[in-house]
Amino acid sequence: MRIIVDAMGGDNAPGAVVEGVAMARDELAGKASLTLVGDKDKIAAAANEAVVSLDGIDIVHTDIAISMEESPMLMAKSKKECSMAIGLKMLTENRRNTYGVVGDAFVSAGSTGALHMGSSLFVGRLAGVRRPGIAVLMPFTPPVLLMDSGANPTAKPEYLYQWAVVGSVYMRTVLGIENPRVGLLNNGTEECKGNEMSVEAHRLLAGSSLNFVGNIEAREIPFGACDIIVCDGFTGNVVLKLTEGMGKFMLGKLKDIYSSGALAGLSYMMIKSKLHDMKHSLDSSEYGGAPFLGLDRPVFKAHGSSDGRAIRSAILGAVRCVELDVVGRMREELDALGIDFADKE
Amino acid sequence: MRIIVDAMGGDNAPGAVVEGVAMARDELAGKASLTLVGDKDKIAAAANEAVVSLDGIDIVHTDIAISMEESPMLMAKSKKECSMAIGLKMLTENRRNTYGVVGDAFVSAGSTGALHMGSSLFVGRLAGVRRPGIAVLMPFTPPVLLMDSGANPTAKPEYLYQWAVVGSVYMRTVLGIENPRVGLLNNGTEECKGNEMSVEAHRLLAGSSLNFVGNIEAREIPFGACDIIVCDGFTGNVVLKLTEGMGKFMLGKLKDIYSSGALAGLSYMMIKSKLHDMKHSLDSSEYGGAPFLGLDRPVFKAHGSSDGRAIRSAILGAVRCVELDVVGRMREELDALGIDFADKE
Repeated sequence: MRIIVDAMGGDNAPGAVVEGVAMARDELAGKASLTLVGDKDKIAAAANEAVVSLDGIDIVHTDIAISMEESPMLMAKSKKECSMAIGLKMLTENRRNTYGVVGDAFVSAGSTGALHMGSSLFVGRLAGVRRPGIAVLMPFTPPVLLMDSGANPTAKPEYLYQWAVVGSVYMRTVLGIENPRVGLLNNGTEECKGNEMSVEAHRLLAGSSLNFVGNIEAREIPFGACDIIVCDGFTGNVVLKLTEGMGKFMLGKLKDIYSSGALAGLSYMMIKSKLHDMKHSLDSSEYGGAPFLGLDRPVFKAHGSSDGRAIRSAILGAVRCVELDVVGRMREELDALGIDFADKE
Repeated sequence: MRIIVDAMGGDNAPGAVVEGVAMARDELAGKASLTLVGDKDKIAAAANEAVVSLDGIDIVHTDIAISMEESPMLMAKSKKECSMAIGLKMLTENRRNTYGVVGDAFVSAGSTGALHMGSSLFVGRLAGVRRPGIAVLMPFTPPVLLMDSGANPTAKPEYLYQWAVVGSVYMRTVLGIENPRVGLLNNGTEECKGNEMSVEAHRLLAGSSLNFVGNIEAREIPFGACDIIVCDGFTGNVVLKLTEGMGKFMLGKLKDIYSSGALAGLSYMMIKSKLHDMKHSLDSSEYGGAPFLGLDRPVFKAHGSSDGRAIRSAILGAVRCVELDVVGRMREELDALGIDFADKE
C-alpha cells in the first residue's frame, strides 16, 4: 500500500507535513509506504529544522505549488504540475501518471477548491455519484458526517440522496455503525418544510432503503440526532464554519472568565486537564482527513491549519480506508442500488 | 401608546404572558397601555395562579388560539379570529379592526409561521420590501442582526438588499449604531463565492449606499465582523438554530466537567456567578422580541419558550420601537432610496 502526501499544501507546509509523515512512518512500521510530493529542497530543509529523518520516505519533486489564494481553475492550466495535481495523477494507472509509482490514496491540506477541481480533472468518479464532495466528520458524540461541506453550493435533490448512500457506506465501514441514521438538514420537522429542493430531497430519502430519520433542525446536530446529515454545499459550509466559530466563541468566553481574577485562575487550575480533554475531543482531526466521497480513488482533505499530528492522523485515516476498501464498498452499494444517470442534466 | 399582546401564544402561555405583562405595566408606569388578547377565563386563572394583578390591563376576549402544530394557512380560515389574528388586526384603523381600539405594536410568542401568515393577511407592507421577514438579534458582543431568520426559505438577491436597508435602519435607530456594517453570509470572502443568488446579492450590496463590508463566513459571525448579516431564510434559520444548539452543547460539556468530582464541583462554586452572567449574556431575549421587518406596523416575535421576563422584555422593546418610530424611519429610508417594484415577479 502506498499513500501519497502533498508536501506543499496547508498553512504549515512543508514543516507540518514533514513532521506528520515521519510520525506516520514510525507508527505504520512498514505497513504502508509513503511518498511526499513537493519541492525536494524545501522538504529537506524542513526535515532538518524539525530534526526528523525522512528515511524510507520517497520524494517526487516539483517546485510548483498552488496556494489558497490562487484560482482553482489554474489546476487545468499553469498549475497542472503542482504538488497537488501530481499527487492526484499518481492515483491512476493511466498515461497521466508519469511518476513511476501508483498510489492507493492521496492526502492534502491544501486549497479545498483546488483539490476539488483537481479531482474532477485527474481522478475518476464513482458511477452513481453525480457530484463528488468533501464530507466532514464533525466531532460531536457520536460524530456526525456532514455532506456536502462546500464543494457544491447548489445541489439537486438526487445529489443529497447519492451523498447519503456513500456517506452511509463510509460510516458503516470506517466507524463501524451498523445502520447509520441519515438526516436531512431542514428548517423544521414537517415534510413540507424548507425550499423546493428540501421537499424533493425528503421524498427521495424517505422512499429509499436508507435509514432515513427525517428532517433534522440544525440545533439537533450536536446531540446525536443522526449519523449523517445531508444538505447543499452552501448550507453545509455555513454549518461547518459556524460550528467552528461557535466553539471558538464559547471557549473564548470561558477564557475571559478564567482570566478574571485570582479565584477564577485557581478554579481553572482545578479543571485544567479536563478542559484540555474537552478541547481535544472537539478536534476533528483525530478522525483523519475529510474524505472526498464519490471519487473512485481515496482522496482526503486535511484541515488547512493542520499541524504535524493532524497530518499524521490524516495519513493513518487514509491507510485505514484503503485497508477497508471503502471505495470498493461504495462501488458495490451503488451498483446494488442501480443508481442510474440517464443524463437528465 | 398601546401595545397589544397575544395572551395565548408560546409554550408557557398564558401564565408567562400574564406575568410579563404585569411586570411591563409596573415598569412602564402609565407610559403605554397594554391590551391582552385571549381567553379571558384562562387569563384570569393564570393571573390568580401567578398572584399578579391585571389592574390597568385591557382584555379582548377570544377563546380561539392557533397552536405551534397547526398549519399557518388556518390564519385565513378557521383561525381568523384567534388571539394572534385579532392582535394583528388591531394594529390597523380599517374595517378589519372591530375591537374598539387601535394598537401601536403587537407582541406574540406564538407560532412563527402563523405570525408570518397573519401579518401578510392583516398588516400592510412597507413599499420597498418585497418580502417581510423576522430579524433576530443574536446576542454576541456586539449583537448581530440576522435577516432572514426563516420566513423566506428561498430568496432573490434584491430581497437581501432590501433586508439590509431596513436592518440598517433598525440597528441605527434602536441600537444607536451610526453606520451599521452589512455582511453577506457566504462560503468565502471572494466576490464570486457561493451560489448564483449570492453573487448577484453581492453585486447589489456592493453597488448600494449601505456600509457593505463584503462576504462574511459563518465562523466570523460571533466575532463582530458585521452588525447585520443577510442571507436567505433557509440558511438563516440554520444559523439561528445551530447557534442555539452549539451554545447548549458547549454549556453541556462544561456541565459534564463540573459534575465530574469534588474538585470540579469546587471549581464550579468559585466561578458560578460569572458562568451565570455568561449564560445570561447569551440570552437574546434581553434585547426584546425579534422584529418583523418590512411591515408597516411594528410586530414582534418573542421566543416560543419565553418566560415572564422575556415577555416583559419584548413589550418594553416594542415600546422603544414605537417611541423611536422605527417603522417611520424605515419608510423614509426606503422612499429616499426610491426602491421600486415594477412587478418583476
